[in-house]
Amino acid sequence: MNTKEILTKLQNNEISVDEAANMLKLAPTKDLGYAVVDHQRAMRNGCPEVIYAEGKTKEQTLGIMKNMLENGTDNILATRVSLEKYEYIAAEIKDAVYNKDAKTVTVERNPVEKTGGIILVATGGTSDIPVAEEAAVTAEFLGNRVDRLYDVGVAGLHRLLSRIDRVEAADVIIAVAGMEGALASVIGGLTDKPVIAVPTSVGYGANFNGLSSLLCMLNSCASGVVVVNIDNGFGAGYTANSINKLGASKR
Amino acid sequence: MNTKEILTKLQNNEISVDEAANMLKLAPTKDLGYAVVDHQRAMRNGCPEVIYAEGKTKEQTLGIMKNMLENGTDNILATRVSLEKYEYIAAEIKDAVYNKDAKTVTVERNPVEKTGGIILVATGGTSDIPVAEEAAVTAEFLGNRVDRLYDVGVAGLHRLLSRIDRVEAADVIIAVAGMEGALASVIGGLTDKPVIAVPTSVGYGANFNGLSSLLCMLNSCASGVVVVNIDNGFGAGYTANSINKLGASKR
Amino acid sequence: MNTKEILTKLQNNEISVDEAANMLKLAPTKDLGYAVVDHQRAMRNGCPEVIYAEGKTKEQTLGIMKNMLENGTDNILATRVSLEKYEYIAAEIKDAVYNKDAKTVTVERNPVEKTGGIILVATGGTSDIPVAEEAAVTAEFLGNRVDRLYDVGVAGLHRLLSRIDRVEAADVIIAVAGMEGALASVIGGLTDKPVIAVPTSVGYGANFNGLSSLLCMLNSCASGVVVVNIDNGFGAGYTANSINKLGASKR
Amino acid sequence: MNTKEILTKLQNNEISVDEAANMLKLAPTKDLGYAVVDHQRAMRNGCPEVIYAEGKTKEQTLGIMKNMLENGTDNILATRVSLEKYEYIAAEIKDAVYNKDAKTVTVERNPVEKTGGIILVATGGTSDIPVAEEAAVTAEFLGNRVDRLYDVGVAGLHRLLSRIDRVEAADVIIAVAGMEGALASVIGGLTDKPVIAVPTSVGYGANFNGLSSLLCMLNSCASGVVVVNIDNGFGAGYTANSINKLGASKR
Amino acid sequence: MNTKEILTKLQNNEISVDEAANMLKLAPTKDLGYAVVDHQRAMRNGCPEVIYAEGKTKEQTLGIMKNMLENGTDNILATRVSLEKYEYIAAEIKDAVYNKDAKTVTVERNPVEKTGGIILVATGGTSDIPVAEEAAVTAEFLGNRVDRLYDVGVAGLHRLLSRIDRVEAADVIIAVAGMEGALASVIGGLTDKPVIAVPTSVGYGANFNGLSSLLCMLNSCASGVVVVNIDNGFGAGYTANSINKLGASKR
Amino acid sequence: MNTKEILTKLQNNEISVDEAANMLKLAPTKDLGYAVVDHQRAMRNGCPEVIYAEGKTKEQTLGIMKNMLENGTDNILATRVSLEKYEYIAAEIKDAVYNKDAKTVTVERNPVEKTGGIILVATGGTSDIPVAEEAAVTAEFLGNRVDRLYDVGVAGLHRLLSRIDRVEAADVIIAVAGMEGALASVIGGLTDKPVIAVPTSVGYGANFNGLSSLLCMLNSCASGVVVVNIDNGFGAGYTANSINKLGASKR
Amino acid sequence: MNTKEILTKLQNNEISVDEAANMLKLAPTKDLGYAVVDHQRAMRNGCPEVIYAEGKTKEQTLGIMKNMLENGTDNILATRVSLEKYEYIAAEIKDAVYNKDAKTVTVERNPVEKTGGIILVATGGTSDIPVAEEAAVTAEFLGNRVDRLYDVGVAGLHRLLSRIDRVEAADVIIAVAGMEGALASVIGGLTDKPVIAVPTSVGYGANFNGLSSLLCMLNSCASGVVVVNIDNGFGAGYTANSINKLGASKR
Amino acid sequence: MNTKEILTKLQNNEISVDEAANMLKLAPTKDLGYAVVDHQRAMRNGCPEVIYAEGKTKEQTLGIMKNMLENGTDNILATRVSLEKYEYIAAEIKDAVYNKDAKTVTVERNPVEKTGGIILVATGGTSDIPVAEEAAVTAEFLGNRVDRLYDVGVAGLHRLLSRIDRVEAADVIIAVAGMEGALASVIGGLTDKPVIAVPTSVGYGANFNGLSSLLCMLNSCASGVVVVNIDNGFGAGYTANSINKLGASKR
Repeated sequence: MNTKEILTKLQNNEISVDEAANMLKLAPTKDLGYAVVDHQRAMRNGCPEVIYAEGKTKEQTLGIMKNMLENGTDNILATRVSLEKYEYIAAEIKDAVYNKDAKTVTVERNPVEKTGGIILVATGGTSDIPVAEEAAVTAEFLGNRVDRLYDVGVAGLHRLLSRIDRVEAADVIIAVAGMEGALASVIGGLTDKPVIAVPTSVGYGANFNGLSSLLCMLNSCASGVVVVNIDNGFGAGYTANSINKLGASKR
Repeated sequence: MNTKEILTKLQNNEISVDEAANMLKLAPTKDLGYAVVDHQRAMRNGCPEVIYAEGKTKEQTLGIMKNMLENGTDNILATRVSLEKYEYIAAEIKDAVYNKDAKTVTVERNPVEKTGGIILVATGGTSDIPVAEEAAVTAEFLGNRVDRLYDVGVAGLHRLLSRIDRVEAADVIIAVAGMEGALASVIGGLTDKPVIAVPTSVGYGANFNGLSSLLCMLNSCASGVVVVNIDNGFGAGYTANSINKLGASKR
Repeated sequence: MNTKEILTKLQNNEISVDEAANMLKLAPTKDLGYAVVDHQRAMRNGCPEVIYAEGKTKEQTLGIMKNMLENGTDNILATRVSLEKYEYIAAEIKDAVYNKDAKTVTVERNPVEKTGGIILVATGGTSDIPVAEEAAVTAEFLGNRVDRLYDVGVAGLHRLLSRIDRVEAADVIIAVAGMEGALASVIGGLTDKPVIAVPTSVGYGANFNGLSSLLCMLNSCASGVVVVNIDNGFGAGYTANSINKLGASKR
Repeated sequence: MNTKEILTKLQNNEISVDEAANMLKLAPTKDLGYAVVDHQRAMRNGCPEVIYAEGKTKEQTLGIMKNMLENGTDNILATRVSLEKYEYIAAEIKDAVYNKDAKTVTVERNPVEKTGGIILVATGGTSDIPVAEEAAVTAEFLGNRVDRLYDVGVAGLHRLLSRIDRVEAADVIIAVAGMEGALASVIGGLTDKPVIAVPTSVGYGANFNGLSSLLCMLNSCASGVVVVNIDNGFGAGYTANSINKLGASKR
Repeated sequence: MNTKEILTKLQNNEISVDEAANMLKLAPTKDLGYAVVDHQRAMRNGCPEVIYAEGKTKEQTLGIMKNMLENGTDNILATRVSLEKYEYIAAEIKDAVYNKDAKTVTVERNPVEKTGGIILVATGGTSDIPVAEEAAVTAEFLGNRVDRLYDVGVAGLHRLLSRIDRVEAADVIIAVAGMEGALASVIGGLTDKPVIAVPTSVGYGANFNGLSSLLCMLNSCASGVVVVNIDNGFGAGYTANSINKLGASKR
Repeated sequence: MNTKEILTKLQNNEISVDEAANMLKLAPTKDLGYAVVDHQRAMRNGCPEVIYAEGKTKEQTLGIMKNMLENGTDNILATRVSLEKYEYIAAEIKDAVYNKDAKTVTVERNPVEKTGGIILVATGGTSDIPVAEEAAVTAEFLGNRVDRLYDVGVAGLHRLLSRIDRVEAADVIIAVAGMEGALASVIGGLTDKPVIAVPTSVGYGANFNGLSSLLCMLNSCASGVVVVNIDNGFGAGYTANSINKLGASKR
Repeated sequence: MNTKEILTKLQNNEISVDEAANMLKLAPTKDLGYAVVDHQRAMRNGCPEVIYAEGKTKEQTLGIMKNMLENGTDNILATRVSLEKYEYIAAEIKDAVYNKDAKTVTVERNPVEKTGGIILVATGGTSDIPVAEEAAVTAEFLGNRVDRLYDVGVAGLHRLLSRIDRVEAADVIIAVAGMEGALASVIGGLTDKPVIAVPTSVGYGANFNGLSSLLCMLNSCASGVVVVNIDNGFGAGYTANSINKLGASKR
Repeated sequence: MNTKEILTKLQNNEISVDEAANMLKLAPTKDLGYAVVDHQRAMRNGCPEVIYAEGKTKEQTLGIMKNMLENGTDNILATRVSLEKYEYIAAEIKDAVYNKDAKTVTVERNPVEKTGGIILVATGGTSDIPVAEEAAVTAEFLGNRVDRLYDVGVAGLHRLLSRIDRVEAADVIIAVAGMEGALASVIGGLTDKPVIAVPTSVGYGANFNGLSSLLCMLNSCASGVVVVNIDNGFGAGYTANSINKLGASKR
């Protein structure tokens, strides 16, 4: 119900001034004390609920998930979940599924329908896979088809070039790379599709926990490359979904 | 002409081994000594040519533009062009147009057709306008409609909230902000469309030439926010175009 | 007029649904294209208007000031105004006053009444005076009495200790220091009043444009010290006013 | 006894030159070898004693607490106390109370009377709660009433806006946020009360242990925002108390 | 087989268009899902295979090694291998040899023939030895003779000067130093041979995990000094080999 | 007159309580508004007055100098004085002497007697000379004999080694170096005298305005090396004097 | 004359003890006061003299050059020479040649004979050319043949791939790149020759004056890449020469 | 035996050319493979041997100590020794003494005679004591008398001022402080003796492992303050000894 509808109801005396005032306060949220759960968000934002579990206790994480499920959320994605936290959750939520690489927990009671279009997730090396999986799981959970293209870093350029058809077939590309942030530039130069670059903290020395790849990607000479936070696979998967949804109907 | 077509021509003896070898070298580029101009790029990347003029002399900038125009490029965008450089260019290329705020030069002999969809460009303050204009001009040059929403920073939240309908009407949003990198987070929380955040070097002290806004945007708690380099209005406009093009046909 | 009042008017049919919807959009702002001037802010925030002039052209600065004065703002403070900008402004706004040290322009057609309480502005050295003056002018403009205590840095501790009575007499203290960020710690240890520390970019070498004093002040071992951005005299004066207003009625 | 009183006593021969010289040395402190305990501070600074326990051994922490209690301090707050340290202390000081979230130990044998006014402690997310609790416990220990408003980060703006009345009711506001340092700016724009911003080290990647939120808050475009060190809940609570005390008598 | 050879074969109908298209995709690689193993690299790059084991699971590391050995690689070097990982590998690959200092695993079924020329590996202190050993083992594995000169830091200059003949006898020098990045400058001033500087993370405080030595070496006033990443012994050994191979035939 | 003497005078009724209270406030300083001039400092600190002129206007600098001379200071050193400022000063203070390299102004009406002992000032390169001269002039002004040893950087070690006798003859050594911060380490290893290292901002690229040399010197592996701020020649000269004065009587 | 020869002369009474002691002090240097010119270096290091002119006055630069020429140096390279400095020099040294791009001055009265082998200098963009020219001029001055390959950055990969034969033909490669530090990685993956990476300060925003490209190159995933300081074209050219000289005789 | 003595012996045919050449190589060192032990250093540098144990294995540490003792060193100081390493050492070297706070091991078979003069070691807080003890133990081991003044940070200035006589009595002062790097400035302003500042990594948040105190101390506005590396208690103690030795004979 939008503002004008509420005001019309008031004018028609279907609701009182106090009720209108309350309804105009924007949100049907649930305050758990330690977290304000937002039941309207799925409607408002067009996507299921996501919980960032790092820094939350297992009790808090479970509490939020249960509150959501009890209030009508069918699909939940929790990221950065340790195995121990998952086991605590799974004892109560039997259909919670764990992805060990991505460290995600998903509950899918009413899976999102698959959108057309393909999101390609590429990595520079083997060590970047956990971050890439977080991106891939997120994109799949939100209803996208994902193509994984791992270990195609620019130091061995032929590994990427010999698979160029898969780059060309994608609608959105997520480039995940640590030491070799250059992957995003190279892919960005080979395609006109949006490229979301994810720097990872893989590497050592002057990599400074991902600063090196972050700066490299921000300074990419290839147009069309945008960047998310270091190791932020979720953010990349989420934005890739937003972009793909925009473009979905045309295919 | 793709690889297989070239090889088939060779098999059919329509071309020689040397010709095929040459054609397989990917690019019909023109080497000016100081720059390799890429005439195939419009076809390959689906967009007209762009020149980043900073660090190039006025002679080099003009030289590249003339070479392009002589080789069939109709539309050129040059960014980071000082007024003095523009005047040097305009003496020879009469239809070059200068945008003083954005510091761009455009030649549009065959303007790109407008795509459906709207790209909203928002700024936190008045001082962020030059970067925003670079983004807006870029997006318009590439064939997009742009809505400008300036000076709506989060310190006076009502300025943004009272214009929320324009945020909702947009397909892609570019949030440009210096001191108050928070603009991207707030917009990201109000929409499910992709938000491209552009940190600017506006500010002083611990802003450290844009580092503050850059970090703030990278750490945005709103999903769906991606970031480009500090002051990189062009990159934001370019990627917004890529995203909008993906989604264009559905409207 | 608050939300309930608007809704009651609607219920009483004194206004239409559309009028109510408009009024509920929070702000009577004026959009100048390059700036959204906020005429309700004086009421909402309890203080006159302030313009941060850096990064705005002289035309924009004057435009905003004139728009304010025409819409009922009596008192305006503009900070970071170059002498050249001031002269441009003064040609049209005859009663605009310039403070050369602080680089501020003030228009005071209806000066704010003086609050009780004293705000002490102390500096470590002579070179910190411009920043201190920005703080002092701001605090005075907002209706506070200011005591200036300059060049009392900790390397000559007796300079401060012999004036301790002035520290004790103050209600809020602003400690401005560059090389010697230590001033805030020492004052913080001598008083139980709030101390607002302003790091300045004065110094050289490993001062790194104020980073040294900023970190020093943030790490102050004295409780009760809070920090604003490097060289942000305005912010310190503004917050000192907020604090002093809270405490004013008791004196 | 102040300087003049001591000198008058000397002039009246009530004390000797040596005694006067000793009394003029400012402090009745107690040197434990590893710490100089300051028994006059409660009088001088108007507040009970606080111990920062990090980096002190459990023996040292207990030793300081016992020395204080034996010398007339009734109320003690120790911060950054691990559970193990607390248990060591509680074995000897039976009325020591532990707050597990805030990691504080309090002894309150003569609780400070409650001041008028409310200190609001707000957090961006659930993970910021430990720092917020340190601030809240500190403020309460020093005699203030505290309102907690947790998990109202700007990515879901309605969570904050629908509770705006609690922001308006507060006299001093503490805004605690990690990833989303933007909370301080948004609150600062909605109120004219002093806002103390506490960046937290919550987040990952380019958050760089709180640097991101720290810089974001220092660069806040909202006037009236001051900042304390990363994770420094104590400092925020302590200064909020100083400010609230200034304003207390007016209510 | 190079491009022209492939095209000639096609023209001669020795291969089909599809076969040619496939062959022109550059590489006979093997995709293990988590890693793309590059069997052509030994030929292309002139050196045996190297695996960077950090960030790879023990299963992945073993998997890559076995795939290589099964596909004709005789000599493998794996770096950054923990003892536990080695033991897992050694259970299946019996002739895998572990170097505890360097944390390397080598399989040498067909050792590379020794090149002429000497690579000198020098360290500033005892604590730099692990990084130096990684460099030395790498250089030896690739077929070079190595001279080790450890603990000759510049604080005791005579330790280096009294061994100056060994510096003079070397063809390429690797200078490994932590606190005392100065070693590279001093050696660089004493010889006209290429000096590869390896900063190490040895040290404390303002060493900032090797940043100090890195910057020191990058700013070396001695010409002829080049730098690799912090602790990157492998990179130094690898490049020293490339350089030595260039010069080998002349001796 | 120390505290006990003042108290005794009071007890003897030679002074009043008010006079004693005033005298106990430590300092006979002169407040010029923009600067607090400290006339007691020469006595208290054992050295003539020094003015850091950077950030002070020429009027302020001259004002302070004149006030000092009028109040009995015979010898003044002003550092970081531009030629323009000097000329302004010299118009009124005829015996002010300018050193163009060091950018110092000295007035010596009663030159300090020369102490025994030698302070050696060494530089890595020619470009470090201005900083070295600031150190040398300071040390000479304070009454020390100075030996200059310029352009003896470690990249050409023999330049230093062939002058080792001058290093051995010195009592305190100041090592000034930019790119090659290594100079301090090498000298520190050759002598047991105190070495004061002065990093300079000479260099480019990853020198980052002296950060490189600063970190290098702080991490010196040579014991006995202490560091002052980047380009802080004055500080080095001043401390060298303190040290030399301690040791002077023995020679 | 080496140590043993000197000692033998002494034993044979051809020289005195004092003469021998003097000769054993390593260097026949000439002390100009502001610079120690090293006449033995050409012999010792095998290369002509180089002067780094930045930070030296024009008088000092000319003074050093003249001293060298008068003492038998035939070939001089001065780097970082402004046009104004050059003109001052050329007035006295008529055969001094200026390279405007590289900002170098060369005097070649007895040009070094050309070594076999090719040094390839590649740049990512047009703006990197000045640094590349400094490298190229240095390498040529020292007797190498240089191949220039400019504007082949990775965003348009075909520009590099279509010239791959020139990469393959080189013996040493210098990769100069600003925004796109990735160039070194890509080249490093395509060749087994040593690659010297030169980060440039070209770019803006988060490039932070070359830090971005520096870190990117240090973290290159391609083996065989070594790095010099930001914008240090000279260092790259100098080391490329050392490496090429090692390998020269084999061709 | 110095150079001239060796040459004279050669001239007198007391030694051969080869013997002379060997003797002229400067050092009677002992190469243990992992460390070059320097038996001449005590003579050359005037102080006993010191071992920095961090980064050395317990076997290496013991090995170096035993080699020293067997070759005539009577007094050894090892720093950064863990308890476990100490126990390993003590099993063989029975008279090795452990200081748990300072983490030092000392062997003193022929204690150095006490020098006149006092080295004062002051700390800001209790948590700085371990670093202070490293400084104090080092200074005592080298033959100095040490006065400890702990927990006198500037937030409670009277704690320091009431002990000012002990500051005045010292000949060299070591100021150790973490959060409150201001201690060095305040002491520096109260005395004309050399002050060696030791930043510690004590603190949290924006302290960044000691960076805050380091920068604060480097930027001290008090003349006469020099700085050593973060947590480098040893370096401070060592240099304090050098300085005190210079001044010792005068007392």
